[in-house]
Amino acid sequence: MRVKVLGSAAGGGFPQWNCACSNCSRLRQGTLKGKPRSQTQVAIGVGERWLLLDASPDLRWQIESTPELTPKPTENDPARQTPILGAVLTCADLDRVLGILLLREFQPFTIYVTDSVHRILSEDNSMFRMLHRTDRQVLWQPITPGKVFEVAGMPEIRCEPVAMAASYPEYVSAERRSQLARNEAVIGLRIEDTASARKMLYLPSLPQLDDALMQQISNCDLLLADSAFWDNEELVRVRGSGRSAKEMGHLPVSGPDGTLERLRSATRPQKVYIHINNTNPILDEASPEFKQVKKAGFTVARDGMEFEL
Amino acid sequence: MRVKVLGSAAGGGFPQWNCACSNCSRLRQGTLKGKPRSQTQVAIGVGERWLLLDASPDLRWQIESTPELTPKPTENDPARQTPILGAVLTCADLDRVLGILLLREFQPFTIYVTDSVHRILSEDNSMFRMLHRTDRQVLWQPITPGKVFEVAGMPEIRCEPVAMAASYPEYVSAERRSQLARNEAVIGLRIEDTASARKMLYLPSLPQLDDALMQQISNCDLLLADSAFWDNEELVRVRGSGRSAKEMGHLPVSGPDGTLERLRSATRPQKVYIHINNTNPILDEASPEFKQVKKAGFTVARDGMEFEL
Repeated sequence: MRVKVLGSAAGGGFPQWNCACSNCSRLRQGTLKGKPRSQTQVAIGVGERWLLLDASPDLRWQIESTPELTPKPTENDPARQTPILGAVLTCADLDRVLGILLLREFQPFTIYVTDSVHRILSEDNSMFRMLHRTDRQVLWQPITPGKVFEVAGMPEIRCEPVAMAASYPEYVSAERRSQLARNEAVIGLRIEDTASARKMLYLPSLPQLDDALMQQISNCDLLLADSAFWDNEELVRVRGSGRSAKEMGHLPVSGPDGTLERLRSATRPQKVYIHINNTNPILDEASPEFKQVKKAGFTVARDGMEFEL
Repeated sequence: MRVKVLGSAAGGGFPQWNCACSNCSRLRQGTLKGKPRSQTQVAIGVGERWLLLDASPDLRWQIESTPELTPKPTENDPARQTPILGAVLTCADLDRVLGILLLREFQPFTIYVTDSVHRILSEDNSMFRMLHRTDRQVLWQPITPGKVFEVAGMPEIRCEPVAMAASYPEYVSAERRSQLARNEAVIGLRIEDTASARKMLYLPSLPQLDDALMQQISNCDLLLADSAFWDNEELVRVRGSGRSAKEMGHLPVSGPDGTLERLRSATRPQKVYIHINNTNPILDEASPEFKQVKKAGFTVARDGMEFEL
């Protein structure tokens, strides 16, 4: 199984269109030791078949920047085709689902999603009807936290949703919220390649680390973990108001209960920080924070990185 | 007034993620004489203030590729800011409106839109609530075909919506459709810089050319005109089924009633073809079709082109 990081920034990307924070400004001026990053997007591949983990708003550019994901026509193939079999959605956040609407060009594929997130998208957002203009277009496949599911066309892969203690996005109405399962709001994904028996955990939202999750992390070979913010008040300082990292469902990297300290004991997996907000100092490779993370054995994800499991 | 073309392709862009037509395949292989193009997006600027015409799904990349549109902080400015004052939406098609959701980062700006399109976005798509997380975020300003409106912060500009004979997108329900004004589905924009007294017409959807519109075209200085398809059956041939160009609300470029022939008599404006579908042979600068269009005095838009009015 190949694991490709197509995008590694949090929502808004790096730089963010309306942000003139130190990171964004220096990146635009060319004075930052660091790279631009598109919004978090991962694809896993077996042979020439690919599955998207989430669907970022940058997906069109991310696909086109990745030759493996573009059409490979042979003589008698139809002009419209793709090596992408489907996408698993981990929540209803715009930076995880908008990319689905970019794949609306009459292309058959499968979306694996909890019933609750499916209802938000298909019942509360008429634009998703663009995925159902022909009979054979998009298939929604319900998935459930704790239950392993198979990916059509990729029998080598076993995938298990892991419920995260986080809530639905702000745009979901109170009425809709009352009808949804709490444990289906945000999931992580545990993905195993049965051929190599190697496992990855994809946790782009990490609101808390309990014992059960720590055990899963200690037993995997590759961890892609949320690192939206370095500290809890980071975004409040830039914006002048708003919610803390933890209130937004993101454990910060630093501090005694931060992921850097808490994940120290997990020695088996390769640990990769992904979903990095434009304000996070680890984007600056000359910063003490970047050096601290590297010294602790973490990799800071960049667009285009690839892992083999 | 500066007119910047940030994107010039039709919906899906060029190349399109799932397309292996001759144009897309040769572009990916590097054997096409032509350039990749993002989805149609125009911005008009007066001094350092900018107004978007529509909001393409590629808007994050389009803004970041255009230094004029990125934040320019001075010492005491807040970290979050933008020179973009707002956007005018010409219809509810996904390739014209999805970009609005990319501008959701608590940034105040104004959206100029017909009441009908506003209802589709805000009443039928809960995701647009992300634009209203704080009191001072997005302001929706109703506009009406035939009525000149002013753009807040750009008093030099006069803008007039021109009703086009086209319908609402496929995702709009029959019930909602029955409540909407027919002439508000798709508009073009007539924009005048009162300082220079020069006028442009922005017509990214051109379903028909009647006498009134022909007269407006003959009286403008710059025409940005829909050129989605070269001929009426172009997309049907690639997809193997589906609707013709005219059925989709796009006059083809070629043929006796095509725009190339019909616009021949308009000699005043600089004529620019925009909103070009990935299948259109004018994207291939070695093609007879490209040469025919150039010989007739048209410019084929490219991303990054700029006009001064």
